[in-house]
Amino acid sequence: MEKQFMSMREFIDIPDMDTHASVENFERFKEQFNHNKTYPYGFMAQSAVGNKMTVKDYYTHEVFETTSFVSNNYLGLSQHPKVKQAAKDAIDKYGAGTCAAPPIGGYIDIHKELEEKLARLHGQEKAILFTSGYSANIGVFQNMFNKADIVFADMYVHASIYDGLRNNTNVKIYKHNDMNYLELVLKRSQGKYRNMTIVVDGVFSQDGDLAKLPDICDLAEKYGAMVFVDDAHGAGVLGKDGKGTLDHFGVENRVDLVIGTFSKSMGTAGGYIAGSEKLIEYMRHFSRSNIFSVSVAPAVVAAASKAVDLFSEEPEHIKNLWKNTHYLKTKLADMGYDTGHSETPITPLMIRDDEKTLSTARKLLENGIYVVPAIYPAVKINDSRFRVSVTAQHTLSDLDKFCNLLAKINNEYGLGISRNT
Amino acid sequence: MEKQFMSMREFIDIPDMDTHASVENFERFKEQFNHNKTYPYGFMAQSAVGNKMTVKDYYTHEVFETTSFVSNNYLGLSQHPKVKQAAKDAIDKYGAGTCAAPPIGGYIDIHKELEEKLARLHGQEKAILFTSGYSANIGVFQNMFNKADIVFADMYVHASIYDGLRNNTNVKIYKHNDMNYLELVLKRSQGKYRNMTIVVDGVFSQDGDLAKLPDICDLAEKYGAMVFVDDAHGAGVLGKDGKGTLDHFGVENRVDLVIGTFSKSMGTAGGYIAGSEKLIEYMRHFSRSNIFSVSVAPAVVAAASKAVDLFSEEPEHIKNLWKNTHYLKTKLADMGYDTGHSETPITPLMIRDDEKTLSTARKLLENGIYVVPAIYPAVKINDSRFRVSVTAQHTLSDLDKFCNLLAKINNEYGLGISRNT
Repeated sequence: MEKQFMSMREFIDIPDMDTHASVENFERFKEQFNHNKTYPYGFMAQSAVGNKMTVKDYYTHEVFETTSFVSNNYLGLSQHPKVKQAAKDAIDKYGAGTCAAPPIGGYIDIHKELEEKLARLHGQEKAILFTSGYSANIGVFQNMFNKADIVFADMYVHASIYDGLRNNTNVKIYKHNDMNYLELVLKRSQGKYRNMTIVVDGVFSQDGDLAKLPDICDLAEKYGAMVFVDDAHGAGVLGKDGKGTLDHFGVENRVDLVIGTFSKSMGTAGGYIAGSEKLIEYMRHFSRSNIFSVSVAPAVVAAASKAVDLFSEEPEHIKNLWKNTHYLKTKLADMGYDTGHSETPITPLMIRDDEKTLSTARKLLENGIYVVPAIYPAVKINDSRFRVSVTAQHTLSDLDKFCNLLAKINNEYGLGISRNT
Repeated sequence: MEKQFMSMREFIDIPDMDTHASVENFERFKEQFNHNKTYPYGFMAQSAVGNKMTVKDYYTHEVFETTSFVSNNYLGLSQHPKVKQAAKDAIDKYGAGTCAAPPIGGYIDIHKELEEKLARLHGQEKAILFTSGYSANIGVFQNMFNKADIVFADMYVHASIYDGLRNNTNVKIYKHNDMNYLELVLKRSQGKYRNMTIVVDGVFSQDGDLAKLPDICDLAEKYGAMVFVDDAHGAGVLGKDGKGTLDHFGVENRVDLVIGTFSKSMGTAGGYIAGSEKLIEYMRHFSRSNIFSVSVAPAVVAAASKAVDLFSEEPEHIKNLWKNTHYLKTKLADMGYDTGHSETPITPLMIRDDEKTLSTARKLLENGIYVVPAIYPAVKINDSRFRVSVTAQHTLSDLDKFCNLLAKINNEYGLGISRNT
């Protein structure tokens, strides 16, 4: 390609451009994708989003089946017959929605049941539900803290935590998993703020590595800070019966708040927080994203609730997930690829070049493999990669197909898949 | 009652209190409710949230049926057999969730169909979906503007607009529906900002009155501002075939962006924005609450989509809604009650005293009527009221029952229901 691919940032960081001019200019960013048919927002599924997925090509309008690695449906529970039945039964009983916010009539018995189940899952006293994990983080960070407080966030926490923290409180972003730096900033901040709070993802969503929770809890106790963990990618994946990252490390009693989502191993859409009774009841009154949103739809609540049951009732899903994860990671490592420091089913395949990432994704798609190219702003600039999401639904033949095709593309086109050196 | 009821604000606006102390202190606020059994967060439904609703009493643990005015399920479509069937069919086909964000595999054909339907509904070119109306407003206002811009917001816009605007841009809140003041601030601001944008609710959610959209569009055109309308309570209620407030006033072509929700007349849970193709495609890349949330659950999409069809296919629901609305408003007016300036099914019954509002709500509940007491922070301090939400599902006998009971309580207990004087 003769033309250098320009990142989105170069098109939008033009301070004196009004919204209309920015919108016009942004069209040029989108056009860049078209010469190698890689516009990532063009994909559309015509089926469930599972290990097999029917997609419509944005450029050719062809409809074809792919083997897919795009969904965080880790345990395949989105398509589990018992989960689907629970959702349908809830629609029969409660209708398609409550059409009321939780404090003004929208709170129904299955909300309470699910809250209790989620609190137990994470070893906490209580939980409340939100319409998404994003909303949960907005609710927590916009409404629990103010400028008298300070929050220490690992630089790789989810975007929704950044958005919750935006402008509301003092924030110190620390280098990923750097415990020395975290201790340094805790020590420096001690005594200067009303609250100090450390926030991490249990499992980091783009790299698949874990927060060092035992060390973090030690530091929190030493300096009098709270610990909040977003366990979106840990629940249903790590710990006994899918109890998540806190259980994996045995720190349930040392963490103040867990933030979670229904849109990964729980197979549906929605979010929650779990913690002490007092903290949760406080947030029930003050989390504006909770009190000013409709309560979570009955079908979603019932699906998530059944999914949590299945973590322990059908352990084969978690077992399959890990079998597939180990198989793929070993195979990619044997082939010499750079898959970062993942300890979970999230398998980053590093490319570190936006255009190469996008064009390889296209070649994979044309050969029936659908993987997500992650470019800025989902990851740092120049840190582009495929985010390969292994699930319990994949067969070994799915995984083989992916690896073989990847090797073929890399050999034929020399598209610069990074290798460990 | 010997004891003065203290507002939530008095318990939380204590600047030097850390989170733990605030949480402890807040328990005292909650205890105030218990002496007259009015803790509003204690209600829990054990049925669909419709005109009849089975609730469990927080204090007595009794389970009983109520006639309810709490849901924004204006047309009763949450419980409509066709809406329920569409939601269940979507679960069969797509599962309980996509477990992927829209730009990374979570975008499915029924998302696109619903987007097209919503754009048509509001007379716009394109639309995109969000997990809630709250998230839609966060996405729009946090990501379209910055400190070079200014937004003029009617003081009664929904809480989610306030939250989206928090700290991101310059904001001028103007007195409710005050066109002279709006013109003054537009004139003063002209030339000083990159963009000027006016934002209003089409139907204001606590008072049920309408934005003066023709005047607002005139001013916007005169001074070169954009107009954004949150039509959560207008769609399915106003305009031909439920096309909303823009259609009601004939201003579809003069408004830049419409924000909406599935959780009112569309009978489920979720949100959307609709506008010009360019603006919507721009937001598809930059609305962080969209790109960093899972895509909307298939059951919800299918339910909303069928509901929008029913706006025109079964006009009897909108007709019944308005018949009931006129009946109740006329009856309450004849009885001399102050119901504000509502022009829609949202019927505020003004009490203007937190404790009286709560204790009357309790008496109504004990007699089988469930209405929402709206107190701070849902409304201004000292502006407490019942927010009576009339729906197409109510029977005239439901409405009579409510009015008769209200008269009885007011006569017997002199609880200070305000009258027009």
